Amino acid sequence: MITHISPLGSMDLLSQLEVDMLKRTASSDLYRLFRNCSLAVLNSGAQTDSSKELLERYQEFDINVLRRERGVKLELVNPPEDAFVDGKIIRSLQANLFAVLRDILFVNGQIASAGQHQHLNLGNSSHITNLVFSIMRNARGLHVGEAPNMIVCWGGHSINENEYRYARAVGSQLGLRELNICTGCGPGAMEAPMKGAAVGHAQQRYRDGRFIGMTEPSIIAAEPPNPLVNELVIMPDIEKRLEAFVRIGHGIIIFPGGVGTAEEFLYLLGIMMDPENQDQVLPLILTGPQESADYFRVLDEFIVSTLGEQARRYYSIIVDDAAEVARRMKLAMVEVKENRRVSGDAYSFNWSIRIAPDLQLPFDPTHANMANLNLHRDQPPAQLAAALRKAFSGIVTGNVKEYGIHMIEKQGPYKLHGDPDVMSRMDILLQGFVAQHRMKLPGSAYIPCYEICR
Amino acid sequence: MITHISPLGSMDLLSQLEVDMLKRTASSDLYRLFRNCSLAVLNSGAQTDSSKELLERYQEFDINVLRRERGVKLELVNPPEDAFVDGKIIRSLQANLFAVLRDILFVNGQIASAGQHQHLNLGNSSHITNLVFSIMRNARGLHVGEAPNMIVCWGGHSINENEYRYARAVGSQLGLRELNICTGCGPGAMEAPMKGAAVGHAQQRYRDGRFIGMTEPSIIAAEPPNPLVNELVIMPDIEKRLEAFVRIGHGIIIFPGGVGTAEEFLYLLGIMMDPENQDQVLPLILTGPQESADYFRVLDEFIVSTLGEQARRYYSIIVDDAAEVARRMKLAMVEVKENRRVSGDAYSFNWSIRIAPDLQLPFDPTHANMANLNLHRDQPPAQLAAALRKAFSGIVTGNVKEYGIHMIEKQGPYKLHGDPDVMSRMDILLQGFVAQHRMKLPGSAYIPCYEICR
Amino acid sequence: MITHISPLGSMDLLSQLEVDMLKRTASSDLYRLFRNCSLAVLNSGAQTDSSKELLERYQEFDINVLRRERGVKLELVNPPEDAFVDGKIIRSLQANLFAVLRDILFVNGQIASAGQHQHLNLGNSSHITNLVFSIMRNARGLHVGEAPNMIVCWGGHSINENEYRYARAVGSQLGLRELNICTGCGPGAMEAPMKGAAVGHAQQRYRDGRFIGMTEPSIIAAEPPNPLVNELVIMPDIEKRLEAFVRIGHGIIIFPGGVGTAEEFLYLLGIMMDPENQDQVLPLILTGPQESADYFRVLDEFIVSTLGEQARRYYSIIVDDAAEVARRMKLAMVEVKENRRVSGDAYSFNWSIRIAPDLQLPFDPTHANMANLNLHRDQPPAQLAAALRKAFSGIVTGNVKEYGIHMIEKQGPYKLHGDPDVMSRMDILLQGFVAQHRMKLPGSAYIPCYEICR
Amino acid sequence: MITHISPLGSMDLLSQLEVDMLKRTASSDLYRLFRNCSLAVLNSGAQTDSSKELLERYQEFDINVLRRERGVKLELVNPPEDAFVDGKIIRSLQANLFAVLRDILFVNGQIASAGQHQHLNLGNSSHITNLVFSIMRNARGLHVGEAPNMIVCWGGHSINENEYRYARAVGSQLGLRELNICTGCGPGAMEAPMKGAAVGHAQQRYRDGRFIGMTEPSIIAAEPPNPLVNELVIMPDIEKRLEAFVRIGHGIIIFPGGVGTAEEFLYLLGIMMDPENQDQVLPLILTGPQESADYFRVLDEFIVSTLGEQARRYYSIIVDDAAEVARRMKLAMVEVKENRRVSGDAYSFNWSIRIAPDLQLPFDPTHANMANLNLHRDQPPAQLAAALRKAFSGIVTGNVKEYGIHMIEKQGPYKLHGDPDVMSRMDILLQGFVAQHRMKLPGSAYIPCYEICR
Repeated sequence: MITHISPLGSMDLLSQLEVDMLKRTASSDLYRLFRNCSLAVLNSGAQTDSSKELLERYQEFDINVLRRERGVKLELVNPPEDAFVDGKIIRSLQANLFAVLRDILFVNGQIASAGQHQHLNLGNSSHITNLVFSIMRNARGLHVGEAPNMIVCWGGHSINENEYRYARAVGSQLGLRELNICTGCGPGAMEAPMKGAAVGHAQQRYRDGRFIGMTEPSIIAAEPPNPLVNELVIMPDIEKRLEAFVRIGHGIIIFPGGVGTAEEFLYLLGIMMDPENQDQVLPLILTGPQESADYFRVLDEFIVSTLGEQARRYYSIIVDDAAEVARRMKLAMVEVKENRRVSGDAYSFNWSIRIAPDLQLPFDPTHANMANLNLHRDQPPAQLAAALRKAFSGIVTGNVKEYGIHMIEKQGPYKLHGDPDVMSRMDILLQGFVAQHRMKLPGSAYIPCYEICR
Repeated sequence: MITHISPLGSMDLLSQLEVDMLKRTASSDLYRLFRNCSLAVLNSGAQTDSSKELLERYQEFDINVLRRERGVKLELVNPPEDAFVDGKIIRSLQANLFAVLRDILFVNGQIASAGQHQHLNLGNSSHITNLVFSIMRNARGLHVGEAPNMIVCWGGHSINENEYRYARAVGSQLGLRELNICTGCGPGAMEAPMKGAAVGHAQQRYRDGRFIGMTEPSIIAAEPPNPLVNELVIMPDIEKRLEAFVRIGHGIIIFPGGVGTAEEFLYLLGIMMDPENQDQVLPLILTGPQESADYFRVLDEFIVSTLGEQARRYYSIIVDDAAEVARRMKLAMVEVKENRRVSGDAYSFNWSIRIAPDLQLPFDPTHANMANLNLHRDQPPAQLAAALRKAFSGIVTGNVKEYGIHMIEKQGPYKLHGDPDVMSRMDILLQGFVAQHRMKLPGSAYIPCYEICR
Repeated sequence: MITHISPLGSMDLLSQLEVDMLKRTASSDLYRLFRNCSLAVLNSGAQTDSSKELLERYQEFDINVLRRERGVKLELVNPPEDAFVDGKIIRSLQANLFAVLRDILFVNGQIASAGQHQHLNLGNSSHITNLVFSIMRNARGLHVGEAPNMIVCWGGHSINENEYRYARAVGSQLGLRELNICTGCGPGAMEAPMKGAAVGHAQQRYRDGRFIGMTEPSIIAAEPPNPLVNELVIMPDIEKRLEAFVRIGHGIIIFPGGVGTAEEFLYLLGIMMDPENQDQVLPLILTGPQESADYFRVLDEFIVSTLGEQARRYYSIIVDDAAEVARRMKLAMVEVKENRRVSGDAYSFNWSIRIAPDLQLPFDPTHANMANLNLHRDQPPAQLAAALRKAFSGIVTGNVKEYGIHMIEKQGPYKLHGDPDVMSRMDILLQGFVAQHRMKLPGSAYIPCYEICR
Repeated sequence: MITHISPLGSMDLLSQLEVDMLKRTASSDLYRLFRNCSLAVLNSGAQTDSSKELLERYQEFDINVLRRERGVKLELVNPPEDAFVDGKIIRSLQANLFAVLRDILFVNGQIASAGQHQHLNLGNSSHITNLVFSIMRNARGLHVGEAPNMIVCWGGHSINENEYRYARAVGSQLGLRELNICTGCGPGAMEAPMKGAAVGHAQQRYRDGRFIGMTEPSIIAAEPPNPLVNELVIMPDIEKRLEAFVRIGHGIIIFPGGVGTAEEFLYLLGIMMDPENQDQVLPLILTGPQESADYFRVLDEFIVSTLGEQARRYYSIIVDDAAEVARRMKLAMVEVKENRRVSGDAYSFNWSIRIAPDLQLPFDPTHANMANLNLHRDQPPAQLAAALRKAFSGIVTGNVKEYGIHMIEKQGPYKLHGDPDVMSRMDILLQGFVAQHRMKLPGSAYIPCYEICR
């Protein structure tokens, strides 16, 4: 089956050179990237979290860029059927397909010129930030005329029905207050707030509701954009995606999630506790239904016992009160606005918040890197938060991911250097996640993959 | 608490004479009507079906029309709190308030001049139709540029959760096909398809989704407009409301409901089986989830056994297949369009469908009127359908409504003249409704309030 | 030649009763009115000022209202060719045709019900004002959201090229300040400011520029709407047209013109000098190029000598300074806004300005009516202004109009009762107009058609 | 005097790196370019054709880019007063200022990366075309949804009043046919058609009228964008500007002009007579009022006598018939559309027309280059046309431009190799221009600055 798709929203015209770049050739990495991201978009709403499964299922899928008198067209060969209604592609998928095209061409253009001359150096912190900005601007995702109103929602993509309903209720209350939503763009806690906000917006006749889905190539297939995403942005990698969340969000809500969600929380604390960010205003609320109270209690105890009581300055926990969550976010928008006004920073992009290189650059959990982590309390909490995030990331890898389990089998447990108390807190936290079925384990029991060296 | 509300959508300017008409005076019926309808709108989404309860609860509520430099404002005194989010009125309620103002002033202006001169005579069929048209046009509810796309959804306002979910799924499928929804504007089967369609429209980036709530003063308080209604229209009475549904709808879906829903079905058959309407195209689908299959089976048997096999030409029953319902409606739109084009009738208002005076004028179930009904099969089925609707309406009144029960107590059971078989079929149907808890009865047992005379 | 025209802007749907009203029947006055106004619109831009000539030239012209599936269509039979470009009607004419339809149906509906019941009595001042309001509102000519910005421009329709260029320059300066224009909708001083403002608006990217043409049936054929008019409104008669100017205008500019223009000036002074209007703010500027200085000097002297020095409070004369005219108007808009805000009157419609019955009702210059005029200075100047307007109107009729000349021939000169000095001033003024070729006279010399009685 | 200007239309957000690039530093060429182009824009509508004069008059002018919470602002120091109305900048100038910013940053970014890596090589024909495309796309000047409707108008910037009026009449007729205008963006023949079209568009209620001003840094100061330009594009140099005209225009009209206009005509013939372009459809009309008939007759004779009768296939001359010019262009749009559809080329950008390197790369009229020109008839006419354009350009330089006059003084007359008949035809043409005052000469007499070598 072959269909031709017209542009919607962006990238309606390509130059001949651009079309050539995306040609399918045996050797073309760019084509492969483009094809796979497109396939993920077409699979929107599918209830899978395995990108491997997706790619294997649609091996016959193919995509070609055609030039026509009214601009570009995409030729889809054997696309997933669910992307179509009575033979016509669903418009949000159509728009998202062209968002993929837009971002892949743009990032490729930027990266291509990097290294060769001065204006883009991807090891340089301000150049990274600049790239994140340029991608967002090119995607027309920075709206100059708007006062702060973008709420980033984080949380697991496979939450239970109760949590889903609660996240939708929060979304509805946010929508009633004309706030917009930005998430990682998959199902679960990434879909529910958007669904709620869509109804809230409708009640307020708010026609310009924004539902930003921020993704990146390694994750898009496992968490395809849910059907409500109306602005899809594909960042080049996981760190730039996290940076984008922090720079375009005006407030952040964390719903219950797996360990990934906990890691993101530590990432944020690593930023907010940085003394250079002491004047920043970025409201952060952890929330869930009554039954998730435990999840947050355990997380909170872990934070306080490792980073100290002062960490609590940067977040609130609200249990089972969707309206209150939204009310507080709405109120905080006034402060965010005033803060930007005073500092002269853009409403639509937070240039001034500092993201330390530790958080901006990727971490590879080798035994050596893990052994080098400093997990003692005798350091600034922001640094401990960043180190914990890494340790955390490594432990999860060692316990759960194929690549990590292999390393542990071959080289024995990670050797960590840190306060035993910090480590035992981490144990407790992870065991809690296991008990709450928030963490898939290969075997039945949770066995730490590390040991503490004094 | 006093709030001032600015216009949204319509009626931003009133003349001095109009403002005077709505002044609160002891004797003003118009003011009372205006106040009560406004209160109902502000109570949107409330889970009550008792208008008495609503009116009693908000005795302190008051509304005044003010003239200001930027046009009219409404002053609300002690309005329901749920109409506000953080102190600001929800925009859809704001718009609906002004829709109330608009329709009440317009209808009053039209009726005031009726009787006194030739151009409006409310006993005259074509003048009634003209009034329905004028109200719709004044409400800007007739969109000339649009091809047929308006699906009327009927069904109970207190359906169970399963039926609600199914109705929402049908709405979602309709929305994905860019069809619009018109309902009686309350909760239940009147809300669910709109909620679904809102998400379907969002997926299709269809920004002009229309959710018409068609109501009238005697019903608005019991079934306040749900929050998704973005075009509220208040017809002067129940018959004009039914006529409006038939003239602006391009297709009709009937979800499970109580006896009211069955009555509406008979009303439709009374129209469609009229030989003058043999060229009309008005697709009619009865649908529900698997568990509602029985409901429709019983209804279908009743129809066939009374009006004959040929009645089935005018409706289909689809069980548990939301996508199929939407697909058929979408296909039928092409036929509707072609049919209007050929007959030269307006897409937005079906002038040519005939509604017999029997159906256009109200029926009062006195003993005399009931005794006069002809319920024999030896007449055209359209007439029998109309007569059955009346009998039906009367029996329900006699069994359930205070006014009817009193009459029966005083004057004995209704005497009906008709085929015993037709009557016994009616018994079976009503007993089925009782068994399915679709009919509230004052006592525990169902006792017919009529007897057959031969 | 027969063409079918679709609606643009308004009246896309008519009821069957409305279509019947406009059917061409031998006896139908309404049809005739509709046909002639439509013909005038189609003749837009034509350089004629004789309605007789126009009507005679297009005797074969015919217009019919048709109902179609996408709404109403107009069938034009033998329309003027200049209304079309390459066979397609010019869109502004298309819109104006439907404005004619709209206003004629609306006014007819209102008038039809007047007299028969209370809500419209055309002898009652507030009911007249109400009708003017209703016509404007029905034409969607009252924009609630806009701050005061509507400048009424008066002046002759056959000014010379120099004056035309100056009026265009004033328009351009008004346009640069985002002010809108309302005129009597013909050529000359009624077209030039619109043409200028269109360019000014374009420079300011002001896309919602409004060019209201306010006309009435007896004048539309002689002064067909110029091609820039984008809101055509047809008032039922000359007095309601004048009232509409005063109630929707926020400022008035008078360019050089004939005696008609002088009459309008007296009409305004009659209103502004009314003590009840002492708090009104309605800036009035008389302006023209250097060569028109004399025109205004003579007018000014006449006013001062008859109504007194205090009349000058209500107008300024600016010679040859287009930017200054616009600057002052723009500044005055702030005052107008504040004034409305304080008094609570609508920005879009001045309800509170008083127009005395003397000015609101038509004046018929019979010998008796003329003899009854009080032209003495011993009365409030507002009354004298109103009386002078009538005398003036009568004298012009007696001198120039066929109907007036006949009367004078038959019954001798008008007998006027007033101060001789006032009369002689009037003589001087009229002779000035003659000398400046602003007044067409049947013979060569100007001979007064009246005499003063002491 | 210092003013801050907010963005309009584009470039509302800049990155920190971009702002740094435009900082005023002694050495910054980019800043200087930006400042001078901005100054030219602010001088819009000024009646000067000397860039030197402009730059000298506003030596105190300065411009700075500021970053603010709502995006970028421009700080203007001592800007020309005429850019403001009552202290506020005229909106079209505001938008054009940001167009300057947009194009300068974009072109700089593209050029910066050129040479260093493969994807932009400015000696390569397809890369040049690609750059022209990218600049147009970045300026959002390529509208995918539109059918062909862009008419390029060429002609002198100092035409006489009669020619101006005629060009405006042509514009008006184009506007009535909903065609858009693209010109070199200065006064005279570049302004008049836009002014006319603005009124034509208004009559057709055509709200999306496009008035593209295509300029480049060396010319913008001498021919500042007229006030009607609503899309300003700054190409990097004169050749890319010419290429842009040819690729985005769907038809070309040449009004009377100086020698520059004649050169442009030869440029076009050089393209159209290229055998590779035989399937291209690009209607070309030369037109002017009656009194310009001679101008075109002489030009026509020159073309026919040098390039042969067949050259006439590519143009028509229409004298004094504005409506006919527009009618033909409108008709031709159908052919253009069909042609693009068949070839699969974009409506908004003609990728397939060939522009030979000879025409795409700049020509420097040194004595050596001039001597190398082949001006004999024994070559394909397209090549002769291109060579003539160069000879022509050189002769004008030698006669009129300071730089050329110096060269001639130092090195004697150019030696040209070509048919004497061709040369003498050129003489006649130039003398004609002199006689018609279309060419400013330093002295009083026209003396050829070249001699023919056989």
